[in-house]
Order: sequence, then structure tokens, then C-alpha cells
Amino acid sequence: MSQYRVLIDANDEKGLVHKISSVFFQNDLNILSNNEFVDKENNKFFMRSVVDGDIVLDKLYQSLCDVLPQNANVDVIAPKNKNIIIMATKEMHALGDILIRHEAGELEANILAVISNYSDLESLVSKFNIPFICISHEGLNREEHENKILKCLTEFEEIDYIVLAKYMRILTPKFVEVYENRIINIHHSFLPAFIGANPYKQAYERGVKIIGATSHFVNNNLDEGPIIAQEVIHVDHAYGWRDMQRSGKDVEKVVLSRALKLALEDRIFVYENKTVIFQG
Amino acid sequence: MSQYRVLIDANDEKGLVHKISSVFFQNDLNILSNNEFVDKENNKFFMRSVVDGDIVLDKLYQSLCDVLPQNANVDVIAPKNKNIIIMATKEMHALGDILIRHEAGELEANILAVISNYSDLESLVSKFNIPFICISHEGLNREEHENKILKCLTEFEEIDYIVLAKYMRILTPKFVEVYENRIINIHHSFLPAFIGANPYKQAYERGVKIIGATSHFVNNNLDEGPIIAQEVIHVDHAYGWRDMQRSGKDVEKVVLSRALKLALEDRIFVYENKTVIFQG
Amino acid sequence: MSQYRVLIDANDEKGLVHKISSVFFQNDLNILSNNEFVDKENNKFFMRSVVDGDIVLDKLYQSLCDVLPQNANVDVIAPKNKNIIIMATKEMHALGDILIRHEAGELEANILAVISNYSDLESLVSKFNIPFICISHEGLNREEHENKILKCLTEFEEIDYIVLAKYMRILTPKFVEVYENRIINIHHSFLPAFIGANPYKQAYERGVKIIGATSHFVNNNLDEGPIIAQEVIHVDHAYGWRDMQRSGKDVEKVVLSRALKLALEDRIFVYENKTVIFQG
Amino acid sequence: MSQYRVLIDANDEKGLVHKISSVFFQNDLNILSNNEFVDKENNKFFMRSVVDGDIVLDKLYQSLCDVLPQNANVDVIAPKNKNIIIMATKEMHALGDILIRHEAGELEANILAVISNYSDLESLVSKFNIPFICISHEGLNREEHENKILKCLTEFEEIDYIVLAKYMRILTPKFVEVYENRIINIHHSFLPAFIGANPYKQAYERGVKIIGATSHFVNNNLDEGPIIAQEVIHVDHAYGWRDMQRSGKDVEKVVLSRALKLALEDRIFVYENKTVIFQG
Repeated sequence: MSQYRVLIDANDEKGLVHKISSVFFQNDLNILSNNEFVDKENNKFFMRSVVDGDIVLDKLYQSLCDVLPQNANVDVIAPKNKNIIIMATKEMHALGDILIRHEAGELEANILAVISNYSDLESLVSKFNIPFICISHEGLNREEHENKILKCLTEFEEIDYIVLAKYMRILTPKFVEVYENRIINIHHSFLPAFIGANPYKQAYERGVKIIGATSHFVNNNLDEGPIIAQEVIHVDHAYGWRDMQRSGKDVEKVVLSRALKLALEDRIFVYENKTVIFQG
Repeated sequence: MSQYRVLIDANDEKGLVHKISSVFFQNDLNILSNNEFVDKENNKFFMRSVVDGDIVLDKLYQSLCDVLPQNANVDVIAPKNKNIIIMATKEMHALGDILIRHEAGELEANILAVISNYSDLESLVSKFNIPFICISHEGLNREEHENKILKCLTEFEEIDYIVLAKYMRILTPKFVEVYENRIINIHHSFLPAFIGANPYKQAYERGVKIIGATSHFVNNNLDEGPIIAQEVIHVDHAYGWRDMQRSGKDVEKVVLSRALKLALEDRIFVYENKTVIFQG
Repeated sequence: MSQYRVLIDANDEKGLVHKISSVFFQNDLNILSNNEFVDKENNKFFMRSVVDGDIVLDKLYQSLCDVLPQNANVDVIAPKNKNIIIMATKEMHALGDILIRHEAGELEANILAVISNYSDLESLVSKFNIPFICISHEGLNREEHENKILKCLTEFEEIDYIVLAKYMRILTPKFVEVYENRIINIHHSFLPAFIGANPYKQAYERGVKIIGATSHFVNNNLDEGPIIAQEVIHVDHAYGWRDMQRSGKDVEKVVLSRALKLALEDRIFVYENKTVIFQG
Repeated sequence: MSQYRVLIDANDEKGLVHKISSVFFQNDLNILSNNEFVDKENNKFFMRSVVDGDIVLDKLYQSLCDVLPQNANVDVIAPKNKNIIIMATKEMHALGDILIRHEAGELEANILAVISNYSDLESLVSKFNIPFICISHEGLNREEHENKILKCLTEFEEIDYIVLAKYMRILTPKFVEVYENRIINIHHSFLPAFIGANPYKQAYERGVKIIGATSHFVNNNLDEGPIIAQEVIHVDHAYGWRDMQRSGKDVEKVVLSRALKLALEDRIFVYENKTVIFQG
């Protein structure tokens, strides 16, 4: 008996659920969970099913393709740990939260390595027997630095996701396109408010009463990729920007870990610079 | 073209989605939205679909019954305003919120009347051209009072829901069983904490840091019916119990109106003293 | 025995609390509550005290001025209902919430009138025996329209606050400066995100997972005045922009009423385009 | 120049703020922050000030005692790392969160040791060079087991707080009274709902729509000590109790760490089985 996650998106038309559920039924598969969504504005159908039964992945995939329209995207996934690389700079909270979850067995992930442009985090990472790779940017221009990272990354096979756990440098389009929709960032503001540098200082200066954090896939416009998860906390006049920064860390780490978990469990569709996420 | 809400629950078995979606497909119905849930612990299947197409309600109902197992409950509903009675005592906030929403056209409901055991709310209700019926409990025992209310209710045809908008008297089993799973109450605590009288005072004395409100269907155990919606707010040591009461009103009215809306839109299944609610 | 709210702000220096509390002590006043805040970045001191005792307002005011530095702002207020004007356009929820609270006696306010550029809300407002004044903008340029409103406003004495309960027109600097820091607006986004027109549509298009509302004093930059209160709700991919708009209404009305209450209770200092708010 | 935290509680009477601020003023102390609260129901005054200046701790303490009534409790504290012992059983999330915060320098604490009745957590704790002490309860009755722990604790000097980071055994009155108001527990429910064993299962069976966690000081009634912090998350019908347990962990760790931080920063007064907490 195997368990599969089936992800399908297609232009919406009558009968899609019927066709898909027929395949499941004819192959004697049990539906463990089923989520659907139709974006009426764009006439787009999304479905994520978890099924189990006696069938091999390729056959299930082919059966689905046979009945679905040509424009459909079909993905049949056998759950297993995904390979991730974490990139960070100096802060410990977001990285630490992932390391503890990983240690506790909460994540469907193998952490292949942590890459940083500083060495500060080496002590923390090495406690967990995870390779720490320091690739300093000193003396290098942005392209040279990224080339060193890209080269390093090619030494790992099959990287599913790159997690930017407070990696404080902007990635170039060249880097981003290699890992399209596979780089997960945490931005320390409630996007689209306070794009760019030091959002807590911007928030403090604007006098907001709520601050937040946003996890998103990285695309080529700074902090404008598809949003995966957001969370906020209330603040008041007594918060200086450093207080916001301190309190914000708790939100940042929770939001990034939540987004990572959604990705690892194949719950996210990316579409029109947005995400469709099935949590149930 | 008609639009229907289809609600089905049944013992779970392979092929249910297939059978249901086949009926939709064969009748040339368009699925506007579809939600499913399988309670694996109890092996129970729930589904709510919104479909539109050229078919009459009875035929769709029959087609579904024909393919589904005998244990299945099938409900096919043509959306229309439901008839509700509101019962209240003296407080204005929960009732007022419903009246304003009704006035704004937000609710799929006709308010047949507001019934109270006091006359305080008459002035408010009569502004909205809704019948206000005062049935005082003075000089009556509980049974006599309820009999007067029950008699009054029989004068209205087809009451879909009775909304207890801070009606501060306990209903007897006799009353409750007449309107099983159709009486929606708001309790001013985060149930199951602080059942019974003056929950804000109880909350104050316990020194909690969060207070809440719970909307639930009424059954024969005080404050123990199936929960529909809950919400909370943060408080601190500076809140006396009257401050909690004052702040709590905002949560109470929001939660009750939310629960009412879910009921009016046929989004709630009641099952094993719990609710399955499809919000999407 | 009289009760006063004392609001003081001044450049911070040693001994301010000592000087102020000495005045209270020497005049045999009882401190019912006391809140202080020092903005260290700007070296600014804020204090709000509620005191009661046998003293007249003018004498208390003078005693405080006598001991405080010249740069101090002193305000001694005897709590009483403040006079407010509500401006709205067509939507009922924010206005309705204030009307119900007013009817329930929750607000320290007299509603002098509701002014609208349409007549849609007349039916609602007149239920509550509050004057409804329709000042249509049709056929008028912005200045002419505002002049008619300003003229109308001069007929009321002592307007403490103007509440924009979803008044969908932009006010000119000329209007704003007449009522500096006395116009309270509700903007239907989590500012500074989505300034300007149709923020729900902007939010939908950006694919955010949280939407919000912001109440602020109006200044001459659109949606950039001092923020008083903000609140958010979670949304997901299933929310079209009209769903966001519908759900957002519940946040809008709660936030606006909260901000109004803070203003009526003299809890807000405005300073450097921000607010210092003492809630306790 | 020294910085002190001054905590005072006393029966309320006119002039307390005046007397205290006079001491600060006469000793040329600068007030960095000041929080007051009067519990009118119990006529009790609370104040927490942070001051700096040229004075030794003992002299400041004496000066305050000289002017305050005999019933006053005065505490003058020079901020420094407090000594804490963490007790845990098998779960990693709450302990791990504290370890990472400690590693990041976020906590004003020295972690003297982690004590557990199992050895599971040794691997995690030893990564951080913190002593791990396994005191198994196997073959021992409750008293014998606690005596071994108590004996172990006496080997540490000056334990300020004992943090129960999901320590899954009940402490006896004898143990609790040794560390009165110094044992901080995390209970995995929104107290007072779901006291005792497996609160997530209780919550699941009740069908609640919100679950939570509560951090409190331990007293001799199970889960009934003074509450320090609470937080909640929304759930729905799709959450089995193990899903609640999984999601609840994120709340548990955040709430426990928040409570610990408040304790370490001397922000908590315990009074009448409640807490007065000054966060500002």
C-alpha cells in the first residue's frame, strides 16, 4: 500500500472532479483527504488529494493525464523528506527554530547544509551535526559572491527548497531563476508595508499599532514574490524600533517555519504571483 | 438556471466523491464550490457542494439518493432567506448588531419577531419595523413562561432558527427539543471555561489573561451544546470584571453574528455534539 | 467631589512626576489611575492621571502650570459627553455600530448630526432621532462641496470630533486644518499598506494572507495621519476581493468605534505624527 | 551610575506616588520608566519603576522604606542574570525554544541545569554545554522521586526560578512550598478549561474552535496557580487531537518563553492568586 499526494491544476471545466475521482475509484484508491478550489475570476481549478492504495506512482500519474485536458498540470508525489539548504546571516532565532524542529522530527526535511556570509552561526549549527558553510562576501562583488554560492549549491543533489532564515542580502535575478518558486524568504514586515531595509525602523517611524512578518517565495522584485504566510503582533507607543525588532523575532520564526512546513507537505500552488494553499 | 447547496453526510466508503460528482456531471451541473471532510475516527464523510444548472430540486435530490448508500443524509437546498426569531433580554449590543446587518442586507434572513421577557428593547426593535413581543416571566414559573413563548412561536410558520441574542434565561429540555439544533446561543465566555452565571466575574476572579465568547447550538446541558464559533480578546490586571464585561460585548456580538451567518448559509453539520463547518 | 482627567506633556526632565504628584497630594486629590511614558528618543514626557477631590478645575490647572516648565502642555478635563459629527457616504456598518453604541449609552458623546453626500443612510439615521443632513456633491467641485459642509458645520457649537464613518471623499487641506487632530477616519486597509482607492482590490491582487483596517486622525497627506488603532483578520486564496470587503467590514467598524472611544475618553496624545495612547 | 528596578506594593493611600517620586527626586535619580496600578476592589497599590543614578542599592531601599507605610513591600533590584533550573520530560519544543533564546543572549538568565525524569533530552541539552541531570522516577514513589530532585536542587546556590518546560509529573505541596511563586509551568490548555491530563484530547472531544496554552506559577491546586500569560490559536473540525497537540506546541513554547522573560525582568507581582504584570 502506498500513499500519494496528488496535485492538479487546470483550466476549469465541467466534470474535472468527476474525471479525477473516477480514476481514484477505478484504481481502488482510498481518498484520505481532498481539497478543491476554483478561481472563478481566472477560471482556474486546483485540487490536492491524498490517496492510498495498491498502485505505482507512474501508473497513477498516467491514468490521471489520460482523462484530464492537455492544459492540466498533474503532480503525483510519494511523501518523503525533502532536501533543503538554509541560508542565514547572523541572527539565531529563525535558524534555531528550524534546527530544533528538525531535531524533534517535526519536519519532512533533510537539512543538507547551512550557508552564511558570516561565521557567527557556525557554533550553533555545528551542535546539530549539520554542515556549516561560510561563504564570505568580503572583497567580492554581488555576482562573484553569488557565483561562489551557486557553485557550492551544485555540489548538492536535488535541492528541493532553499530557506532564507534571515539571510540579509538581496539575491540577483540570475540566482532566483535557478530556483524559481523554491526559495522561501522571511521578511520582517507585514508586506506590502515596509519593503526593503530596516522595516522595524520604518514601522516605528510611521507609528503603526501592529507589526508583522511575511514569508514568501522569492522572485525578481524585492519582497514582491508570492506570499505564503503572514502573522502580526500588537505594539504600542512604548515600543522603540529595537523593541519591535525584538518582539518581531517571535513572529518571524513562527511564520517562516509555518511556510516551510506547508512547502514540505506539498500544500502550496503558486499561481499569478499568489499562492493557493490547502491546509486541511 | 438554479443554484443549489447540496449537503451530504454518510458513513465513509470508497467511491462517494465519484458517485456524487457523477450525478453532478451527468446532470450537466457546474460545481461552484466543493468542500469535503472525512472524520477518520468515526469513519464519517461530509460534503457540501454549491452547484448550478438546469435541474429541479426534487430530481437532483432523487438522483443523489439513488446512488448513495442508505445511511446517507442528503439535503438539497435552494438558497433563500430563512425565517428567524430573536430572543433577548435587556442588552442591546448583540441584538443591535443583527438588526444593523439585517438592515444592510447582509443576512439571508427574515426576522419574524424579537421576543423578550422585558420591555427594554422595544424602543430599539420598533425602529426597524420588526415586531417586538414582550412575554414577561413575572409571576410565572419556568414552565408557564415557556409555554407562553412556545404558544407564541406556533403562530409563526416555518421558523428556521431561534437566535438567543443574550437571552438570560435557561431553556428547559422541553423547549429545546422542539427546536433541536436550531437554537443558536451566545455564551459570554470561552467555553468550556466559566459555564453558567456571570462568567466575566468568574474570569476576573481566576485572573485570566484572555476572555472570550462562544456561540453554540443549545442542547439540554447548560452551555454544552455543539460549538459553532469562538473568539477571544486579551485582558490584563487592570480589567475589573465590569471592564471585561464591557470589552466582551464586542466579541459576543461578532461571534454570534458569525455563527448566525454560517447557519443561514447552510455551512454547518452537527455531529456527535460537535460541528463540521465549511467556510470556503 | 469632582473627577478630572489630567493630561500633561513636556520635555522630559528629572522631577516631573514628583512635581505633579506633589500638586495632587497638596490639594488632597486621590489618584484613581496614572499612566506615564517617556519617549527617550525625543526626550518627551507624557502623563495622564485621573484624580478626584474637592478642587475646581481652574485652580488645579493653575497649580500644575505653576510647578511645571514653560514648555509643558497641561490639560485638565472634567469628563462629559463630547459633541461629534459623523460623516458617511452609503455604507451602513460603521455608522450603524456607532448608532447602536450611542443608543446603548456606551459612548461619552452627543451625536449632533450625520452628514452624507448621498441620501441612502437617511432611513437608518432618522430611526435614531438624529439629524441627517444630505449635502450632495453633484454638480459641485470639491471646494464648493466642502464649503457647503463647512458652512453647515459652523451652525453647530463646539464640535469636538468629526468621525468619518466610511466617508468616501478626500478632504482638502483647508477643511482638515479647521479640525486639526479632531477628524477620525477609518481606512479599510492595514496602513501603510494599500493607501488610496479600493484597498481590498489591491490586497486581493497582492495575494496577502491578512487584511486589516486602520483608524487615524486625518492630516493633509492621504491616509498618512497619526494612527490610533489597527486590527486584522486572516484570509486565504478563497477570498475574492468582494469577500475581503465583506469580511473587512467587521474589522472596520470595531476599529473605528475603538478609536472613537479612546478619543472621547481623552486617552490620546498626538505627537510627531504618531499617537501615545494610555488604555489602562 | 547604577540602574535599579524598584517594585513596591502597599495598601493604597493618598500620597504614595508623591512619597516615592520624592525619594527618587531627592536622590537625583532619573526615572526611565514608571508603571502604576491601583486595585480598587482590594485597595492595593502596585508600582514598578526603573531608575538610574548615583546611589547604592541599600541606601535607595532604606530611603523608600523610611517614607512608606509599614505594610508596604519594597524590592530594589539591580538587573543581573537570574539562576534558573529547567525541568522537562521528553518533549523538545519548549525546552528547545529556551535553549535557543539563551544561546542568542535574549534571556537574563543562567541555566544551571536541565533535570528530567527521562534521558531523551540529554542529547539536545548537552549540545549547549548545559548540565543534564536525569532523575528517573522508575521504582520510586512520588515522594522518594521528589526527594531526590530536592536534594539535587540544594546543590545549586540561589535558584531564582524553576521552569517546567513540559515536565509531565505533578509536584507535591511539599516541593511547591519550597519554591513558592518561583516555579513557572506551561499547561497545554486555555485554563481554566481542560485542567489535568491530555487537555488536547479533552478539547477535541468538546469540539472547541480555539485551543490555547497557559503559563502560570505552580501552587498546590493542580493548574490553578496565578496565571502569567495565555495565548490561543484557531482550529476547526479537521483537527484531530494529535493535530491540536502538534499545532499547540507552537503556542506552548511562545507562552512559556514570554512568561519566563517577564519573570526574569521582574515585571510580575503575585497577589490573591493573580498576577499584576507591567509590560511597558
